Parts: sequence; structure tokens; C-alpha cells
Amino acid sequence: MDKFRFSLTQRVKFYETDLQTVMHHSEYFKYFETARVEYMRNLGLIKKGDFVGSSTVTVVKTLAVFNFPLKFDDEFKINVRISDLKRTNMTFEYRINRADDNRLIATGLTKVAAIDRKSYKPTRIPPVMVDKITAFEKLPGK
Amino acid sequence: MDKFRFSLTQRVKFYETDLQTVMHHSEYFKYFETARVEYMRNLGLIKKGDFVGSSTVTVVKTLAVFNFPLKFDDEFKINVRISDLKRTNMTFEYRINRADDNRLIATGLTKVAAIDRKSYKPTRIPPVMVDKITAFEKLPGK
Amino acid sequence: MDKFRFSLTQRVKFYETDLQTVMHHSEYFKYFETARVEYMRNLGLIKKGDFVGSSTVTVVKTLAVFNFPLKFDDEFKINVRISDLKRTNMTFEYRINRADDNRLIATGLTKVAAIDRKSYKPTRIPPVMVDKITAFEKLPGK
Amino acid sequence: MDKFRFSLTQRVKFYETDLQTVMHHSEYFKYFETARVEYMRNLGLIKKGDFVGSSTVTVVKTLAVFNFPLKFDDEFKINVRISDLKRTNMTFEYRINRADDNRLIATGLTKVAAIDRKSYKPTRIPPVMVDKITAFEKLPGK
Repeated sequence: MDKFRFSLTQRVKFYETDLQTVMHHSEYFKYFETARVEYMRNLGLIKKGDFVGSSTVTVVKTLAVFNFPLKFDDEFKINVRISDLKRTNMTFEYRINRADDNRLIATGLTKVAAIDRKSYKPTRIPPVMVDKITAFEKLPGK
Repeated sequence: MDKFRFSLTQRVKFYETDLQTVMHHSEYFKYFETARVEYMRNLGLIKKGDFVGSSTVTVVKTLAVFNFPLKFDDEFKINVRISDLKRTNMTFEYRINRADDNRLIATGLTKVAAIDRKSYKPTRIPPVMVDKITAFEKLPGK
Repeated sequence: MDKFRFSLTQRVKFYETDLQTVMHHSEYFKYFETARVEYMRNLGLIKKGDFVGSSTVTVVKTLAVFNFPLKFDDEFKINVRISDLKRTNMTFEYRINRADDNRLIATGLTKVAAIDRKSYKPTRIPPVMVDKITAFEKLPGK
Repeated sequence: MDKFRFSLTQRVKFYETDLQTVMHHSEYFKYFETARVEYMRNLGLIKKGDFVGSSTVTVVKTLAVFNFPLKFDDEFKINVRISDLKRTNMTFEYRINRADDNRLIATGLTKVAAIDRKSYKPTRIPPVMVDKITAFEKLPGK
């Protein structure tokens, strides 16, 4: 069952390939980040390059599983959602498919923690963010 | 006088910034490459991630001049053109402006040489490429 | 109990930092790769930039857990070992500590699969590699 | 005549290669930066990841000319010097040679301007830096 409600389509850049002629695995983590930013922008939670409220986030854990490689100039769709939303952290999930045939390329997840924008200390996820994400993802209320 | 006939708009990614809070200067050379690829695609000279014909290109020389920094999430317009087209090489020029106020951010150029796709040895730029670029840029004929 | 028998020390580069003034999380996966290469070199399993035998490897899965950030110019020690060695794949584990005070920075793992160097199809890990890794890591014999 | 008095030796990483099997041209600008940092460290002008004094630098212009490509795992020597030292800016020059046969790989230069560490506004290069560079490079005195 597909619960992804947001996605973006990107294209493999020449400089992202390696000598095995495929997109280097480390590049996926950059696309995961771009997906998180665009997800937040879609919910109105990014203003001038930063999250609304006094907090930002830091990556606590991230992983990717690679099923099939992407070549230079391949278009791919990154599905992204928030699957777990806690008081001070949340987890993003991703599924990447090649655009032209929907072939499964990779899956992944990233746990990010809210931190104060100045002190970088752990803090609560702002209520406006909790509300918008809960509504968008149809997560169980508190 | 502005002779740029092609441009693309991009956005600064979080991972492209550095501790001075601006897009790192090395990232501009990646955007120059993306601009070259999209320029060629616009002329119908890219097919499945490679140039038409039996040749590809290699970078011989590149430079950038930085006027003003870009911040995370800034949108910017990359103008790109081919200003010099020779038998075995050509030179791309770029001008980057911030999207929201047209402020000049950077300029640059890249000289690329045609090389055989298998041997990587210097070769002629394919006639179809010469013709399309000459027509598009209104370069003087031979 | 510390079972790491190989490590390398590296230094955070300016271009690896981001606007939060720390090394960007995606850079750790590049250092994991460098650690794998140097581990293999230490066992005599790298010759002129490639693994001995007719196979190379591809990354199947990778993850990292981030405990504390690194700043520009920080020196850090990457401990690396192979914790699981199977017929066609193996798993590397890492632990990164800051050099000056041994503070735990991050841990991670990468599962790589052996692939034929030309066809990129799955293949067996070469016997010489199995033997050297088994001996070095004191893994249980077959 | 070779006027380089400082150099460092580095090795091409797997992730720095592209589908043409060589180190991507944008990576050279990262090595130029590393060379600048190590040059400054060698003169005692780097303390805990920042330049001595109240200023830091920003890149104003940079260029590279590519003579021959580097492959994965190639060792190369980066020669670096300051060829021009002015009141508020200075220019670094580089020459990269392959380590095993001294083959010329690339040359380049970077003009950097001193900026205040907090305001990022142009400022003078600190006198201690001017003195040490002038002595080391045997530049003409004022």
C-alpha cells in the first residue's frame, strides 16, 4: 500500500556519476535532503531558506538500500513522507523509482531532531509543524 | 549587450553551503556543467545522456569570477551561450544572476574539447552540432 | 570490547562543512568509502586502483548514526572492520572518534556485494580476499 | 624555473571519479582549497580551523587548465605558492603533477580577498600574514 503523498522528479547529473558509470551512492543522501526541503516547502513550512519557528533540524540517523543503479541523465521520482513524528524528532521515508519505467531504484529513511537555531540544542518540534504534518500525513492525533 | 539566448533557473541546496553560510565556490562549476547539458538538450544534441554522434567532450579549461554570494534556497538564473566554436573545441560562457532581484552573482567560462567516445582522443566536433550551434548563436559561418 | 584492527585519521575540509558550521552528514559516506579502500589496501587487496581478481564491489546498503558533529579542520579517526563475510557480499562497520579527545562522533555500516568487473553482475568474493579478510579479522573459518 | 616551495601529495578517491573514469574537473577546486589551507598551516597561520587575526578569506576568482586526467587511486602532488600579495587580496598558484611519473596534470590559480570574520566585509590582510608570506615566498618588500 502506497502512502506517499508527495514526490519530486529529478535528473542524474554528469558530476554525480562515478567510474562504474552510475550515480554514486553518497549522492542519494543529498537527494533525500532535497526531498525533505521540498516536502516542507509544500506544507508552507520553509520561509526564505529556513524552517518556520525558532528551530531547525539536524540529522541523527540515515540509511539507504540500493536496488538498481541510475545512469547519467536518468530521470527519477523521489517519494517522501514523514512516517514517525515525535516530540523532538521525526523520521522521513523515501522511495526512489526510475521515471521512465517505474523501476525501484532505492529506499531510505532519515531521522532528524529539532534543534534551536542559535544554540543547536535539542528542542521541541514547533506546534505549527506538528499540526501541518499530522494533517497532511493523516497521522494519529495525540 | 546581452547575447544569451538560453538560461535555466536553479536553487541553492543546503548541502552546497559552507560554514560561511554561502554556496561553496566549487559548486558553481557543477552548475556550469548542468547548464552545458541543458543547453545541448535544448538544441536536440543530447540523446539518452550522451551527445549525438560518436564524440563526447572533456573540459580543457574553466574559470569563474565571483561577485556576490548565494545563500541556501536562493533561486538563481544561469545564462549560458557558446561564444567560440572551433574545429575541435568550443567555449561556453555563463552569467549567473540572483532570481529575485537580478543581482549579478558570478560569471564564468569553460573551454571543452571534442573527444572520441571510446578512445577519448581529440576529434572534430560533429557537423550536426556545428550547424545547430552556429544557427542558434548566429555565429559567423565558415 | 573493541574489535577494530584498522583505522585511518582524516581531517575535515572546509568544503565539507555546511551552513550549520559542521561536516555535512553526506560526507561521512565518502569517508566510509575511503576507509574501505584503505582497509583493502592494508591487506594487499588493492592493486592500481582496483580490487585483486576479476571482481569489484557495489554498495547494497549503508547507514550512519550521528552522535556529535565535526567542525572544519577537526581531525578524526575512522575505525573500520569487516564484521560479516558471506559468499557474495560482506559488511563493513565503522566507528568515528574525534582525534583530540576520542569523543564518539558517528558509527555506520555498509554492505557491499561482489560484482564482475565487466558485466557488473553478482559474483563470488575472490578466494584470496576471503582468506586474507578471514585471517585478519579472525573470523570463524568455513 | 620552479618557484614552488610547498607541496602536498594526495590520492584520487573513488567518489571523485566520473563516468569517463577520471577525476571530475570540479574536484580540482576542492584540492586547490585544501592546498591553500595546508600552505597556511605550514606558515603557522591556521589555528583551530581559522586564519590567525580577525579576518578570513573569500574566493574572488579561480581558474584551472587541465592537461591530462587522473584516474582513481592515482597519487598526485599539488605545488602551491602565493604569487601576488596585495593590501586586501592575494593570488595562489598551483601546479599538479602525477606522483609516479611527474606528468603535468593541471595548473590553476585562485584570487582570494580578506574579509572580516563577522561582517564578511573586505578588510586588510593581517600584518602577521603579510610578513610570513613575504618572507617565505621571498616576495619584494614594501
